[in-house]
Amino acid sequence: MSTNRQVVITELPTGELREDHFELIEGPMPQPGPGEVLCRNILVSLDPAARLWLTASAAYRTEHPGMAYEGDDAAAEAVVETADLSLTRDAQPLRDIRKVLRPGDVMDAFTLCQVIDANGTDLTDGDIVLCMAGWQEYAAVPAAWARPIQVVSPLTHHIGVLAITGLTAYRGMLQIAQPVPGETVVVSSAAGAVGTVAGQLAKIRGARVVGITSSDLKNRFLEQELGFDATVNYRSPTFAEDLAAAAPAGVDVFFDNAGGHIMETVLEAMVDHGRVACCGIVTQYNNAEAPVGPANVPIVLVVKRLRMEGLTVTDFSAEWPRAERELAGWIAAGRLKVVEEITDGLETAAAGLVGLFAGENIGKRTVRVAPDPR
Amino acid sequence: MSTNRQVVITELPTGELREDHFELIEGPMPQPGPGEVLCRNILVSLDPAARLWLTASAAYRTEHPGMAYEGDDAAAEAVVETADLSLTRDAQPLRDIRKVLRPGDVMDAFTLCQVIDANGTDLTDGDIVLCMAGWQEYAAVPAAWARPIQVVSPLTHHIGVLAITGLTAYRGMLQIAQPVPGETVVVSSAAGAVGTVAGQLAKIRGARVVGITSSDLKNRFLEQELGFDATVNYRSPTFAEDLAAAAPAGVDVFFDNAGGHIMETVLEAMVDHGRVACCGIVTQYNNAEAPVGPANVPIVLVVKRLRMEGLTVTDFSAEWPRAERELAGWIAAGRLKVVEEITDGLETAAAGLVGLFAGENIGKRTVRVAPDPR
Repeated sequence: MSTNRQVVITELPTGELREDHFELIEGPMPQPGPGEVLCRNILVSLDPAARLWLTASAAYRTEHPGMAYEGDDAAAEAVVETADLSLTRDAQPLRDIRKVLRPGDVMDAFTLCQVIDANGTDLTDGDIVLCMAGWQEYAAVPAAWARPIQVVSPLTHHIGVLAITGLTAYRGMLQIAQPVPGETVVVSSAAGAVGTVAGQLAKIRGARVVGITSSDLKNRFLEQELGFDATVNYRSPTFAEDLAAAAPAGVDVFFDNAGGHIMETVLEAMVDHGRVACCGIVTQYNNAEAPVGPANVPIVLVVKRLRMEGLTVTDFSAEWPRAERELAGWIAAGRLKVVEEITDGLETAAAGLVGLFAGENIGKRTVRVAPDPR
Repeated sequence: MSTNRQVVITELPTGELREDHFELIEGPMPQPGPGEVLCRNILVSLDPAARLWLTASAAYRTEHPGMAYEGDDAAAEAVVETADLSLTRDAQPLRDIRKVLRPGDVMDAFTLCQVIDANGTDLTDGDIVLCMAGWQEYAAVPAAWARPIQVVSPLTHHIGVLAITGLTAYRGMLQIAQPVPGETVVVSSAAGAVGTVAGQLAKIRGARVVGITSSDLKNRFLEQELGFDATVNYRSPTFAEDLAAAAPAGVDVFFDNAGGHIMETVLEAMVDHGRVACCGIVTQYNNAEAPVGPANVPIVLVVKRLRMEGLTVTDFSAEWPRAERELAGWIAAGRLKVVEEITDGLETAAAGLVGLFAGENIGKRTVRVAPDPR
């Protein structure tokens, strides 16, 4: 246990993310400093948002060539503008992830870890904690930035449907969009980690749910396994017509993970006073070019009096414990199916993250770094 | 009184609106049919929305070359999608304006008229009514589509600040955006008819108000005459920096009449959880090209968790009487200054409407067709 396998960033991507933007190395075993605990990484979450952290870091380095290596406050502030996705402990920010990533840094990620040396902090050896230990086997993490988990489900749930993934869907669907029985709800990137949960939450609320994905295979999965009422493939040349057929009464609620052309098309299909929960822009994270906004914004908002609202999971952190209990309850009752893709070993992380932007995954992608220690 | 001067549409514009899209002719004196009243037109409102009615009509004609002249239901339905701006009487739709305009038709407009032949309806000779009589001296209008006005102010107020113009500002600022004391409110097209009212309503609510216009002259007017706290000229090469300087604490509320690049720039300046009231897209009404959406939508909504909501004045028609009383009260108290440009004669209407899209006007443009009969 004298070395620590780590995946580091070789180069900050500015266009399409590739596996060779990352490299597996052997680093030294970390030593916890004052207030830090030594963690062994069990599960690493692969999230589309990670692409934004890299983009923001690359943009910051371009704009501030001398400063990005200083770790100064301005650098921190710059990145928070596009990457404010942190965890919380007792409703406080759990970790300040507003740092500029640099070549040579360990790739950042949400992780589920076991504390193997509590080092005199308020944590205990053996605690399972949610933290941001990155793509590596071991990490020294400030105890204040590690959130102890009361394990009630398979560990993979605690880094997915009961963590950022599920809570994001909960926030967007149940608190922002708030569908009611009989309404038609459209979810884009519907087979993704957040989308699979968001669509099922709308079903739980009694809505008619239409999923948009990039493939007929995913669509069959959503309809047959998750109970989606209809699905549409946005790559179809008849996407707009297919959507109209799938939502003949119009779209009341749109939970959007996509942005761009997909958003533009769905907005045209909405009813007056429809609601849009803006969760992400997976269509554009990987673009080297400047993003393209939906051409019908804002006119379609005026004509149809739509409400669009952006969300991040951190906005309701005080309510997370209740939301986690609700989600766990729906899982236990068989009303919320958990869709996961677990791969083994740090060497699968880069391909796994890259694949998210090719639309490879169905459900939540997580890398298992170590077996469940319990 | 045997002829009726009328301005008719010569050609439906597809790009920039020109005066020669209209022509002044002498038509026959209209005869009211059953349920109709004969009106003499006093004031004609010039509204940016009229450009949308023309665009929608032209688009409909292109898509349905044989049908646009039929007056069929499909044509009516097509136009409502981009031009649902009607008045109400007793909280009911006052007139169905969802018709396709054709070359040869009298140009449509909101008007303030006097009933000169009530023709056995529930109106009375001499009543002053708000209706849609168009660009002509006399019109036969269904009594059900004419809203009697209790005149409490100069007649021009009753077609502007106490009608669509002021009620639109009221809806967007006081019901959608809801600024509170100390917040920073940005208004685009701030020197326009709606903008001058919207900015002053935000001041009445205790907010700090920043206006965006196309000229330093307008900006001086807003600051010196209407009490705006700061102004920015969007044509300046340093627009984004000027806006940041004018709103050093960030923008809490954006009342947008512009869309496009102006919206894109203001969204970047907003604080987390800011609110955007989408009222219009005056930057794009006149474009022959497809509109361009703000490139930062929806990502900026996600990152800042913004709420954007479109509005039309008809959405709160049940509350208009109360809103009119409030607006009249603020005018009487000197807290709301009425900014109007009144021109005389139907022959000024075309140039007046065209000029709206060149940013000529300060405040509400209205054409006086006949003197105040009272």
